Amino acid sequence: MRALAAEFLATGLLLAVVVGSGIMGDRLSGGNVAVALLANSLATGAGLVALILTFGPASGAHLNPVVTLAAAATGGIGWRQVPGYVTAQIAGGFGGVVLAHAMFGLPAFVASAHERSGFAQALAEAVATACLVLVVLSCGRHRPTATPFAVAAMVCAGYWFTSSTSFANPAVTLARAATDTFAGIRAVDVPAFVGAQLVGAAAAVLVFRWLLVPGERR
Amino acid sequence: MRALAAEFLATGLLLAVVVGSGIMGDRLSGGNVAVALLANSLATGAGLVALILTFGPASGAHLNPVVTLAAAATGGIGWRQVPGYVTAQIAGGFGGVVLAHAMFGLPAFVASAHERSGFAQALAEAVATACLVLVVLSCGRHRPTATPFAVAAMVCAGYWFTSSTSFANPAVTLARAATDTFAGIRAVDVPAFVGAQLVGAAAAVLVFRWLLVPGERR
Amino acid sequence: MRALAAEFLATGLLLAVVVGSGIMGDRLSGGNVAVALLANSLATGAGLVALILTFGPASGAHLNPVVTLAAAATGGIGWRQVPGYVTAQIAGGFGGVVLAHAMFGLPAFVASAHERSGFAQALAEAVATACLVLVVLSCGRHRPTATPFAVAAMVCAGYWFTSSTSFANPAVTLARAATDTFAGIRAVDVPAFVGAQLVGAAAAVLVFRWLLVPGERR
Amino acid sequence: MRALAAEFLATGLLLAVVVGSGIMGDRLSGGNVAVALLANSLATGAGLVALILTFGPASGAHLNPVVTLAAAATGGIGWRQVPGYVTAQIAGGFGGVVLAHAMFGLPAFVASAHERSGFAQALAEAVATACLVLVVLSCGRHRPTATPFAVAAMVCAGYWFTSSTSFANPAVTLARAATDTFAGIRAVDVPAFVGAQLVGAAAAVLVFRWLLVPGERR
Repeated sequence: MRALAAEFLATGLLLAVVVGSGIMGDRLSGGNVAVALLANSLATGAGLVALILTFGPASGAHLNPVVTLAAAATGGIGWRQVPGYVTAQIAGGFGGVVLAHAMFGLPAFVASAHERSGFAQALAEAVATACLVLVVLSCGRHRPTATPFAVAAMVCAGYWFTSSTSFANPAVTLARAATDTFAGIRAVDVPAFVGAQLVGAAAAVLVFRWLLVPGERR
Repeated sequence: MRALAAEFLATGLLLAVVVGSGIMGDRLSGGNVAVALLANSLATGAGLVALILTFGPASGAHLNPVVTLAAAATGGIGWRQVPGYVTAQIAGGFGGVVLAHAMFGLPAFVASAHERSGFAQALAEAVATACLVLVVLSCGRHRPTATPFAVAAMVCAGYWFTSSTSFANPAVTLARAATDTFAGIRAVDVPAFVGAQLVGAAAAVLVFRWLLVPGERR
Repeated sequence: MRALAAEFLATGLLLAVVVGSGIMGDRLSGGNVAVALLANSLATGAGLVALILTFGPASGAHLNPVVTLAAAATGGIGWRQVPGYVTAQIAGGFGGVVLAHAMFGLPAFVASAHERSGFAQALAEAVATACLVLVVLSCGRHRPTATPFAVAAMVCAGYWFTSSTSFANPAVTLARAATDTFAGIRAVDVPAFVGAQLVGAAAAVLVFRWLLVPGERR
Repeated sequence: MRALAAEFLATGLLLAVVVGSGIMGDRLSGGNVAVALLANSLATGAGLVALILTFGPASGAHLNPVVTLAAAATGGIGWRQVPGYVTAQIAGGFGGVVLAHAMFGLPAFVASAHERSGFAQALAEAVATACLVLVVLSCGRHRPTATPFAVAAMVCAGYWFTSSTSFANPAVTLARAATDTFAGIRAVDVPAFVGAQLVGAAAAVLVFRWLLVPGERR
């Protein structure tokens, strides 16, 4: 129960960081999208370092349904815990959008009009999610104390090297459909993103099992 | 006594970093507020890493009255030490403003005309402070060597994801009323900020006790 | 075999980060090259932290033929492993360019028209590579857990302090000839870059052996 | 002898980073000084992380005459080693300027015309140097593995919170008089900077001895 509360809170705060810093960056940058995305990506990376370090002791700080699924697939968590984790993450995500909107004086939910579609972006989501899940699994096994920094670094880089800006998280994707701000995504574009994320996560589990489980070299 | 001197010095230097980097960012950015805030947030985060690592051995490097109160509420420090810590932090804060002004050739104190008001910003302060105190308490318990990095990361993110730019510190808030530069806040707006910070800190203590004290998972 | 697959994958993802973040930064910054390079350098540094931490346990995470050569020259890897490592890195590099292009809807390969020539840039590549190899060798010997952060920091700094933006990697250099985007380099300019990198790496091995092997001070 | 070679090389590379990233930031930013200083400060911080981690095992990686003096005053190094260290640092600094200039196709030395004068900037140098030396002494005593990160963070913050952009290093100050680029300083302004740095370093030694030597709290 405490683990679920931690996942709810931490995913909510992650969304507050992602959506809130998008609003602030957009407002202050006067239309310079690159500067807004610099702010958005740095705030998200920094926020992830703090949130994973803080909530890790309570729940493992997954904050992401595909991380929870990958953890279950590799023995890091029991399958029976998965539905609770995923529900808490999704509920937390929507809570975080409401919180970000309230902190900037906006209505609780607004459907996004931000189109994010096409094969290139779906591919980007699969790649970004595969990278993120591989980071979580490999560091979790081989360098657990470095995991918060490695995850934050991968997400921060993902904002820039993928055409989709690297959502890489179904709970985050769903919740971002409910904000018509810098970080938003149209509801109609969500299924392709989530599908691509699931494919990417599955690929990461396979690569992890093949390449990184025995770990007999350094 | 040495602990109080360390809190005075470290809080003073924190204010010098916050106010000074605001002045520099504002002067050099030619009115591009997003670039000025990037400089301000990066300098504050970097400064916190250095200051907490440096002064931690002398006083715990609280630099913040609500961190001191939360430490007392969770047994990290005796209640009898609180008045001295808080006094040293507030005095240090004003000293830091004088120092920043002197380094940029400005008068010692100037009342700020920067309005920061309304429910959205008060909510933002409560959220930002709750996050910061939770980071301090949880990392202090479970990952103390990572605390300086986690605190700096949370404050750096807070500049961007909260509409108030995340003061999250009553000593910092009071002192910033005495500078009419980028980082300033009108004196009339201070009580709502400090009140919200106290509410946020109290919430963080409750969440910490409920979610993070036993710590039987990872 | 797993080590070679890891080098292929990790070098590919490194190129995807370098080329992809160059495309994104260039598109969003509206011609402000400094902002584009900030994004490019931060994404590359962050990506390297994540990739080295993730793939280190499988192959050592060299991602760079001159790192592999330097490791062989200093006993960190057998000479018989070198050809496989280098082949995997070069193949991975071209794969990463295809991946970055696919994520941004571009053709698989496009010859670069970006001129990078002259003595100053060749010198810059020798210096950048010497620095990078010295970081890898010294940290690998004296502070292995800090190596991912030190390597990322050196590469991030290299973007800015060298006139060539610090390729410092023959596999990266070859692959970047196949992209006509922000990160590209004309094929005709590749030999001088790779030659300078080999000279720099050799110098680093000599300095390492002389200065850093005994390590009797701190 | 190896220690002196390490100080020469590392200080030279530090100057190459400081001067080179200043040139690059200035060239690319099209007159936006804030963006140029963001690049300059990030590159310097990242470079310092890499250089201190790399050269620390050979010489302690002081790279700074006042750090060497403070180390001697607190027993970290013998006084007889000081002249050699300081000479190597100053010689390395000038070498680094030549190297940066060569990498950007400029003449070896050019006298700077960049005025940096007045009481405010002298005070800023004293404060910046006191902070830097305190970081080095306290972390060196209490958290040596974190020292490279703490030093880099303080220098990165110093670019922004001090009106002088925080030279905080006599060898760096002397060498920067020999470059008429972004990072330069007029020769006539050097004595006041170096004098202020010595005062700041002396203050830091006193504060360290009083506050941070016994270290009986955390």
